[in-house]
Amino acid sequence: MAQAKPTSSRTKTTTTTKKVAVIGFGNIGTGVVKLLYEKGIAGLELVKVVDIDIKRKRPVTLPASYLNTDWKATVSDPGVDIVVEVIGGIEPAKSILLAALNHGKDVVTANKMLLAHEGQSIFRLASTRQRRIGFRASFVGAHQLIHEFRQTGIAAKKFKRIYAILNGTCNYILSTMTREGEGFGEALSEAQAKGYAESDPSDDIDGVDTANKIRILLALISNSYHMVAPFPVEGIRDIALQDIQYATELDYAVKLIGVIEQNDGIFNVSVHPALVPRASLLGSLTGAYNGIELEDEYGTVSGLVAPGAGTYPTADAVIKDLLDIAEDRTMVMPKSAGALTLGPPEAIERRYYLRFSVVDQAGVLARISNIFWKYDISIAAVIQKETTSKEFVPLVITTHLAKEGDLQAAIDEVDKLEVVKARTKIIRILNANT
Amino acid sequence: MAQAKPTSSRTKTTTTTKKVAVIGFGNIGTGVVKLLYEKGIAGLELVKVVDIDIKRKRPVTLPASYLNTDWKATVSDPGVDIVVEVIGGIEPAKSILLAALNHGKDVVTANKMLLAHEGQSIFRLASTRQRRIGFRASFVGAHQLIHEFRQTGIAAKKFKRIYAILNGTCNYILSTMTREGEGFGEALSEAQAKGYAESDPSDDIDGVDTANKIRILLALISNSYHMVAPFPVEGIRDIALQDIQYATELDYAVKLIGVIEQNDGIFNVSVHPALVPRASLLGSLTGAYNGIELEDEYGTVSGLVAPGAGTYPTADAVIKDLLDIAEDRTMVMPKSAGALTLGPPEAIERRYYLRFSVVDQAGVLARISNIFWKYDISIAAVIQKETTSKEFVPLVITTHLAKEGDLQAAIDEVDKLEVVKARTKIIRILNANT
Repeated sequence: MAQAKPTSSRTKTTTTTKKVAVIGFGNIGTGVVKLLYEKGIAGLELVKVVDIDIKRKRPVTLPASYLNTDWKATVSDPGVDIVVEVIGGIEPAKSILLAALNHGKDVVTANKMLLAHEGQSIFRLASTRQRRIGFRASFVGAHQLIHEFRQTGIAAKKFKRIYAILNGTCNYILSTMTREGEGFGEALSEAQAKGYAESDPSDDIDGVDTANKIRILLALISNSYHMVAPFPVEGIRDIALQDIQYATELDYAVKLIGVIEQNDGIFNVSVHPALVPRASLLGSLTGAYNGIELEDEYGTVSGLVAPGAGTYPTADAVIKDLLDIAEDRTMVMPKSAGALTLGPPEAIERRYYLRFSVVDQAGVLARISNIFWKYDISIAAVIQKETTSKEFVPLVITTHLAKEGDLQAAIDEVDKLEVVKARTKIIRILNANT
Repeated sequence: MAQAKPTSSRTKTTTTTKKVAVIGFGNIGTGVVKLLYEKGIAGLELVKVVDIDIKRKRPVTLPASYLNTDWKATVSDPGVDIVVEVIGGIEPAKSILLAALNHGKDVVTANKMLLAHEGQSIFRLASTRQRRIGFRASFVGAHQLIHEFRQTGIAAKKFKRIYAILNGTCNYILSTMTREGEGFGEALSEAQAKGYAESDPSDDIDGVDTANKIRILLALISNSYHMVAPFPVEGIRDIALQDIQYATELDYAVKLIGVIEQNDGIFNVSVHPALVPRASLLGSLTGAYNGIELEDEYGTVSGLVAPGAGTYPTADAVIKDLLDIAEDRTMVMPKSAGALTLGPPEAIERRYYLRFSVVDQAGVLARISNIFWKYDISIAAVIQKETTSKEFVPLVITTHLAKEGDLQAAIDEVDKLEVVKARTKIIRILNANT
């Protein structure tokens, strides 16, 4: 009888408790400390908590012996097995992670900005030192996707596309504009008042946060810590209420979408507002949720919806990473230095929503459609409403598939027409289809 | 400097190719063979394909040397490392898996009926023999959830509830009834014509298939191969078009839902049609898709949508399991014998949709509401429409939270009133909330 040998990873059980230091005692740090210290998690023992301010009162009370202000001593402490970094920002977070890895610690981080920008040095050092990095918490809403890509590498799973809503602030603002008929500024103020947007909301509303998460996702997909070259990123500041209203009339919702498309190893990557079908998983996602739609190489589409942020979801993601390390499970992290190939944005074929600001006179539509004809851009739908405005009127056109380069050239030409009174608003249409 | 030792599972790379035998050369088997033989997957080599009929023409052509009809010789062949069972049904599938495990093979199966009914002996043998069972394909639409529960065990993650649409046939029928205004019979015939329902659709429409998947999910959640005691299962045969129409009017959709709720280690488990908010992830899921909504112990809700079946999604799930084995990754399988504790169904508190068939005369509503008062059941909404029918009229009531036992007792009493002319239709309301 053929008798295979048992393999180690399956029969292994946790025999020692891992000693955990948490660096950063803000909201997320407090959530992690609460779980580790108050609730208690088998296999994990909190031993140190570091913050520049250890006097302030927190919702969890720790004996003074746990607290210190010296991260350097902590990351080199032989009594610490795993370092959790939840302070955010680039420095000293980067130095903390590199020092911890150099001292042979495994690390867990919630810092998406750091990984998106400095992931190369951090993941490379982890690979070299054979240490682990847990980073579920760096994109909470999408962390289950890490598992989906466990086996990926580009070779194993030639997915076709990922469309993702990865920023709860933007989704909250766009949902509010749609539901309440409010303008961008008003919806932003409301989001700030309710704690869904920071007082400086730029990183969220300009698409930077979404782009950071897309970078981390790409590193996972490609199994490479070579961070991808810059790609087009556009935020939601310029989305007008009337665009949302026209979109609704056309049965679309306006969402900020992170796009990763792949065709034969060539990637299209971008972040921009898009019209997605209202009844789709992404189109129907409201509030501060995140959502992801993935189409695999066979055309099979699956989707995922999860809270985008929040203290407990983030702290919970940190704990999951700690447990993966404590129980010696296979972890997913980018381990090679191969670079992704991005295709030229001009060659991408999309459908477009276009809102022209034109004078209300004969021949306008003819002039615009002649230019479209020249660039071989075919019109799918037109909305022009009767109006009493003397200034200019909105003319909304959706196109069939057109090359980005052609579309931009056509719009440049249209915008030079004297009957066109303002820069044409361009929003891409994505056919999300769950 | 503290220098942790590198751990084995992280640094391991695949050095040998695993030899795979596929037993069952039907649709799924053909999909798996296409991927392994035509496309080729690094680390996996197809060596045998077994079927009782090896003469029939398939969409993939294999050299005759691969094919045989003798599963017994195949599962004991020292040249086979992993046995894939994709024949379905209880026997000989059960004997094949047990024999393969006894011969030291790892196994992969797509057979949810087998695991739901005979999982105990199969998982126990795998534990004893330290072999692996891959069974993602046994609940394709939900297989990402396996990862979510990798770390679970009941102790690690006290989730509150899972509501899941796990049967594409039922979801297709209910969606069609809703969209087209068709009755159950007509929608079923359409589903059969389009290949979404079997000629004998009982397992699907009576909730058996959903219940099988819920059993497997419970085994994962509890990390126990002690299969759970029988729980209430109700299908969709008795859903009338008018119930769907009233639900729509109340802003709900009718869906067949698998329910797992947990409170302090006591589980409520059931499968039944339910009204879920139309705009929720589950309520908006149409067609043959599967969807799952999970609420964790902090009240955080996440959701997952994926195709419920189909040759390629299933074959893809089989390949993922094979890769987990080939690359020696931690796999998830129930490994203990502990039993789950189910709570008494009468104690469950739910909201209810009730459709009474009453004569159109004074005092009917008073008599029904007096009975409700007696059982302390509070009414949330009432719909009664003017009618010209002389027979009886529908009276629809939704309740606030009420104990299942009280509700059943109240309805038993109502149904004995002489003004009530048919058995009252009871559908539970679930507040899915993504």
